[in-house]
Amino acid sequence: MKATIYEGNKTFTVIEKEIEQPATGEVRIKVAYVGVCGTDVHIYHGMMDKRVNIPETIGHEMSGVIDAVGEGVSGYAVGDKVVVRPLDDRKVKPSDKGFNHICEELKFIGIDSPGAMQEYWNVPAFTLHKLKDNTDLKLAALIEPLSVATHDVRLSGLVPGETAVVLGGGPIGLLVAMVAKEAGANVIISEVNETRIAKAKELGLTAVNPMNVDLVEYVREQTEGRLADVVFEVAGVQPALDVMTEVAGIRGRIVMVAIHGQKKEVDLFKFFWKELKLIGARVYEKEDYEKSIALITANELPFEEMITDVQPLSNIQQVFENIDNNPDGMKVLMDCQL
Amino acid sequence: MKATIYEGNKTFTVIEKEIEQPATGEVRIKVAYVGVCGTDVHIYHGMMDKRVNIPETIGHEMSGVIDAVGEGVSGYAVGDKVVVRPLDDRKVKPSDKGFNHICEELKFIGIDSPGAMQEYWNVPAFTLHKLKDNTDLKLAALIEPLSVATHDVRLSGLVPGETAVVLGGGPIGLLVAMVAKEAGANVIISEVNETRIAKAKELGLTAVNPMNVDLVEYVREQTEGRLADVVFEVAGVQPALDVMTEVAGIRGRIVMVAIHGQKKEVDLFKFFWKELKLIGARVYEKEDYEKSIALITANELPFEEMITDVQPLSNIQQVFENIDNNPDGMKVLMDCQL
Ligand SMILES: NC(=O)c1ccc[n+]([C@@H]2O[C@H](COP(=O)([O-])OP(=O)(O)OC[C@H]3O[C@@H](n4cnc5c(N)ncnc54)[C@H](O)[C@@H]3O)[C@@H](O)[C@H]2O)c1
Ligand SMILES: NC(=O)c1ccc[n+]([C@@H]2O[C@H](COP(=O)([O-])OP(=O)(O)OC[C@H]3O[C@@H](n4cnc5c(N)ncnc54)[C@H](O)[C@@H]3O)[C@@H](O)[C@H]2O)c1
Ligand SMILES: [Zn+2]
Ligand SMILES: [Zn+2]
Repeated sequence: MKATIYEGNKTFTVIEKEIEQPATGEVRIKVAYVGVCGTDVHIYHGMMDKRVNIPETIGHEMSGVIDAVGEGVSGYAVGDKVVVRPLDDRKVKPSDKGFNHICEELKFIGIDSPGAMQEYWNVPAFTLHKLKDNTDLKLAALIEPLSVATHDVRLSGLVPGETAVVLGGGPIGLLVAMVAKEAGANVIISEVNETRIAKAKELGLTAVNPMNVDLVEYVREQTEGRLADVVFEVAGVQPALDVMTEVAGIRGRIVMVAIHGQKKEVDLFKFFWKELKLIGARVYEKEDYEKSIALITANELPFEEMITDVQPLSNIQQVFENIDNNPDGMKVLMDCQL
Repeated sequence: MKATIYEGNKTFTVIEKEIEQPATGEVRIKVAYVGVCGTDVHIYHGMMDKRVNIPETIGHEMSGVIDAVGEGVSGYAVGDKVVVRPLDDRKVKPSDKGFNHICEELKFIGIDSPGAMQEYWNVPAFTLHKLKDNTDLKLAALIEPLSVATHDVRLSGLVPGETAVVLGGGPIGLLVAMVAKEAGANVIISEVNETRIAKAKELGLTAVNPMNVDLVEYVREQTEGRLADVVFEVAGVQPALDVMTEVAGIRGRIVMVAIHGQKKEVDLFKFFWKELKLIGARVYEKEDYEKSIALITANELPFEEMITDVQPLSNIQQVFENIDNNPDGMKVLMDCQL
């Protein structure tokens, strides 16, 4: 079988190795597609060399078909279409209060342990979600990032008719926008990159550039002064933090999706004054995956347009170099059988 | 009647003037006691001269008895013991979404319009809450700040058995701690002022000094690693903001009570990582006043000990000077009939 290995130093190699039997409690997946996540690009850039166990196979956004079932696994059979929810919560403790998906000792599969960028992948059965027979496996590789979005929208408590402002129209921001719109919100995306603004519009979404338009005034007009009921911070930059507390209306909820590596300035006065809420959101829970699987299977949203390239897995080095040269693209998938 | 006037420049005067008839929709209150709030001290220091309509009577923490009832007022009679909820929400708009207590055009009575530091006070009847015949009028002057605390605890969603950490053991912090304890929480106060730590202990509360004790480790031990379920930020300083995201456990809720005049540094990574929530809280709603009235009337918490001095209203200048010289005190009341 083919496997790819991140070797450090911006280098992937492609190797041939033996197909392994799944261990007790595991299944072997014939991987169909794997998506490249921002985190994978971070790893490629050497930003996570302390955490990743180099040389290592990475990748966690995938779809596939069960190829072999290990001992002690029930409920799954060869031929089942599946996706992996790449959270290893086996070290959960009572102090995690049942929030397994963010437990203190959580391991992220594909970062902390071997990932999906290979032809076959052995994973614990508890990570699996079954797809429908008619789920498209290409679109299914979007289920992991889409589940970030379904999680964020669920935690926001969004109700139909509310106005949601999405700060940042990258892959995650666009998925959040799609899910929020599907949930009945009036969605406005704020994005500074014109290529991405065009992409958002192509997807049928409303997008404005805060460098050209006064975002707060724009949202005020659109809402008869109510401003945003929900704000999703998916840009990860100080200007987004500055505007999030301005654009949120009274009792507005701000979902913090972006990962801020350093402490940042926040207008806490506005939190007090308008009784705003900030809601931290990390990855997803089981129900978010189920929601995403339903959305992908129904295929009524413009998911196809989110996939900007599909390449053979054996081209992995080229794929990461291309992403560096064209950071405006959305999801790039790799076909793991090629 | 006697009235006090803030003249600017750290100066109050005491004047004699005619008792006025209450206008339509108003009642006249014979003010019993008025408490000095941190905001009143701010005003005295000249920090709010732009907002206060100098020369002006200030004060908003009070108790009293209805002395005359204006036209068009029903449900109130001379002799009723009352407190005022000093929020003038008459300019509420649909864009305030029904959150009248924080509506965009809210006026705060006693800051934006004449307050309670006088012998008789005319106020709109919609601001009134009736006390019980047996409610102690001295304690009743605590109902306004206590309602800040009942509001904060309600918005925190605290449930019995949870651990609440209160950052800052000033008047508001101690009231929050008392209400949280009464609601069934295990409460730990963090306070740097030894006089105030002693006060907290006198009230039967647990208080530690984060300069001597590692607060996070202390809370970790007390909770078998769960850390705080709820944190109340009532200190208003950067070290409290730094520790709030550390001391909160997974999915912890942080209530922002303190008023931060400038943007401050916040560890947003922790919000993401532990899925923390930040909940802005401002003043109170009707139900918070009703809860506070019930608590004060039942008088089962150490409210008496919160009142560190009672002075005649005619001593107002001295009272504010004393507070400046002894900032460790808790609530100072003035008897408005003296
Ligand atoms: N919470 C989670 O579990 C989770 C999961 C995945 C990703 N993330 C985080 O979500 C964020 C978004 O991920 P992504 O892959 O879409 O990243 P991305 O970098 O592709 O997207 C960010 C977008 O924000 C835009 N932007 C920059 N400045 C802006 C501004 N001032 N106003 C508006 N937009 C601005 C950029 O042009 C870019 O398109 C990242 O911080 C990522 O780490 C979080
Ligand atoms: N949200 C609202 O509606 C509302 C209403 C009233 C007051 N407030 C605000 O609540 C805050 C508290 O009010 P207060 O009257 O009790 O003020 P206060 O200044 O008397 O109390 C703050 C306390 O924090 C302590 N402190 C300072 N540094 C600390 C640290 N590093 N760790 C722990 N404690 C520390 C101080 O010693 C002091 O006792 C203020 O910011 C006030 O403006 C808000
Ligand atoms: Zn990902
Ligand atoms: Zn007050």
